[in-house]
Amino acid sequence: MTTDRIRSFLTERRPEGPCLIVDLDVVRENYQAFAHALPDTRIFYAVKANPAPEILKLLAELGSSFDTASVVEIELALAAGASADRISYGNTIKKERDIARAHELGVRLFAVDSIAEVDKIVRAAPGARVFCRVLTDGVGADWPLSRKFGCDPAMAIEILEYAHRNGLTAAGVSFHVGSQQRDTEAWDRALEMAAGVFRTLAERGIQLTLVNLGGGFPTRYLKDVPVVGAYGEAIFGALRRHFGNRLPETIIEPGRGMVGSAGVIKAEVVLVSRKSDEDPLRWVFLDIGKFGGLAETMDEAIRYPIRTPHDGGEVAPCVIAGPTCDSADVLYERDPYHLPLGLEIGDEILIESTGAYTTTYASVAFNGFAPLQSYVI
Amino acid sequence: MTTDRIRSFLTERRPEGPCLIVDLDVVRENYQAFAHALPDTRIFYAVKANPAPEILKLLAELGSSFDTASVVEIELALAAGASADRISYGNTIKKERDIARAHELGVRLFAVDSIAEVDKIVRAAPGARVFCRVLTDGVGADWPLSRKFGCDPAMAIEILEYAHRNGLTAAGVSFHVGSQQRDTEAWDRALEMAAGVFRTLAERGIQLTLVNLGGGFPTRYLKDVPVVGAYGEAIFGALRRHFGNRLPETIIEPGRGMVGSAGVIKAEVVLVSRKSDEDPLRWVFLDIGKFGGLAETMDEAIRYPIRTPHDGGEVAPCVIAGPTCDSADVLYERDPYHLPLGLEIGDEILIESTGAYTTTYASVAFNGFAPLQSYVI
Repeated sequence: MTTDRIRSFLTERRPEGPCLIVDLDVVRENYQAFAHALPDTRIFYAVKANPAPEILKLLAELGSSFDTASVVEIELALAAGASADRISYGNTIKKERDIARAHELGVRLFAVDSIAEVDKIVRAAPGARVFCRVLTDGVGADWPLSRKFGCDPAMAIEILEYAHRNGLTAAGVSFHVGSQQRDTEAWDRALEMAAGVFRTLAERGIQLTLVNLGGGFPTRYLKDVPVVGAYGEAIFGALRRHFGNRLPETIIEPGRGMVGSAGVIKAEVVLVSRKSDEDPLRWVFLDIGKFGGLAETMDEAIRYPIRTPHDGGEVAPCVIAGPTCDSADVLYERDPYHLPLGLEIGDEILIESTGAYTTTYASVAFNGFAPLQSYVI
Repeated sequence: MTTDRIRSFLTERRPEGPCLIVDLDVVRENYQAFAHALPDTRIFYAVKANPAPEILKLLAELGSSFDTASVVEIELALAAGASADRISYGNTIKKERDIARAHELGVRLFAVDSIAEVDKIVRAAPGARVFCRVLTDGVGADWPLSRKFGCDPAMAIEILEYAHRNGLTAAGVSFHVGSQQRDTEAWDRALEMAAGVFRTLAERGIQLTLVNLGGGFPTRYLKDVPVVGAYGEAIFGALRRHFGNRLPETIIEPGRGMVGSAGVIKAEVVLVSRKSDEDPLRWVFLDIGKFGGLAETMDEAIRYPIRTPHDGGEVAPCVIAGPTCDSADVLYERDPYHLPLGLEIGDEILIESTGAYTTTYASVAFNGFAPLQSYVI
């Protein structure tokens, strides 16, 4: 998954220190795969996955819309060339002054999951369109989401009715089937719920029009994942099953699925050691860890593919850890990672599928280490 | 624990957005308490806990030495006025070029826990003093450390002998009894082990001189912790027990214990909501979370005291979460936090004992949110 362009960049530029290289050709292919798999669905790229200006500009040119989490992300999307009608303020937790600022910038689509948030939008963005996030169970996801976002369907109905009665456009519902979702059928149950919300509100004279299908589209790490086309078919089937011929307007919010596979982190082996002479495990310390951009190894949730100069040689289990003086800065220990026995101090390795949720996760200066450098080519 | 100086600063300056305010008077008191409790021990402040230049400058003036994790931290300590002989490069995982740079800057004390690391120091910092970190069990710590740092005592003996034979000064051993260690006796077992290493090497003609007692000194969060004097007495007792009248040179590396209680984070309530009409729990969303500086709430390990404008009123359990669109950005959920029922959107709250491991942990721009602002007064 390290493309020829990335290999050439590394060979020619030899950047110092740990860094991420993103290949825009892969981002383009990923965008086109989504657009092809779900031709009637608008794509809102989840800017938080990787807000590099070059990525946003490419996606804006390709016709993408943008899911944003903050005013800063809205400004980035606008700067990349997206018009305000292609931007959704998808965070359900917003300061009222940030809603006002987004409204000033022309944004008209907002996420909510509570009456209190609707009240803020009524005051700060009168007349805006809102969609209500509903809780789902996240079965089948490598990283099921917590209950942080969304409310139960009965409360969503109240919230949308309340929004409608207070001068907003009750646009529809959103949900998120869980990050790195490998079950293409996960959208079925959520769409059944969404159709129920549509029906109940229609009975009350409120016509919803929008289903935000969220993100959750996976990147291939070590385990295989279904192709985007399989998700498209499963989602289209579920839409037909639950909405019949009256298909709603739909949007998706891929982040990881759009940029994860486009990025590779170059890192260096700083130390290989054992804890005792009898220790069966080697400890491999890299110049990047949990605080330098690999936060998603938290609980060993995501297992990145790693390439070394010794691939093909005999392997043995290792603990892999980062360079900081923080004992929590360990990437893989509970389930040791197999790396070549030939691995040595000073070796450069490639950590693949790291295009999403790495650069912006890096800490500002923990232990004095610089944040992750990024090159978009 | 919010001092009058911090309250006045907040009232007069009314800083916008989440921020940390550190009161240098408290840092000074903490330094003096350590110096008083362990008068014969050198204090090496763990720079990683909070590298604010004003803190380093104050501690340098008070006579502190500095435990550093990287070349950047060494440069910060030098810039604050510490001479190179007051700096320890305490990270056991160092690139050889960083060792060379530290050596160039005059640093002569280095941590190791492997033969490979000794080899680097032999090449890049010939003649330096090294201490070997030994694994301990961490019993009694709120946050026992992983096995990331240190090796077993038998290996430590080999490593120190190897260092000695290769022209380095085998200075001694270090250990860490676990972060936020509330058992003052935790140092006893570690010192017994250290004395054993001293004896074995003395039999081989190598006289160790240094015991680095590490950090682990706690900050008072919600639970009471022993006063610094109690640690001093327990440690001195253990030193006498295991080293008799030939007490080694000792150093401690307080980080959290030096600055934790000196800082308060001002934050704002962004949303208070429930997930359903029947939900017994309120969700309280703040403008700071795990990615904005409160990373140590990971696994709900550290429970910060929180002050609100409604303290004294009736309380009820809440989930507390941060402002990002990341479902892992939840501070307290497994064990809900009791906050006043009167708490409202827009309220300013104070998160106390947040002087350590907050600013530098903040992510560079996750979700477009700025890193934690810091004011040292």
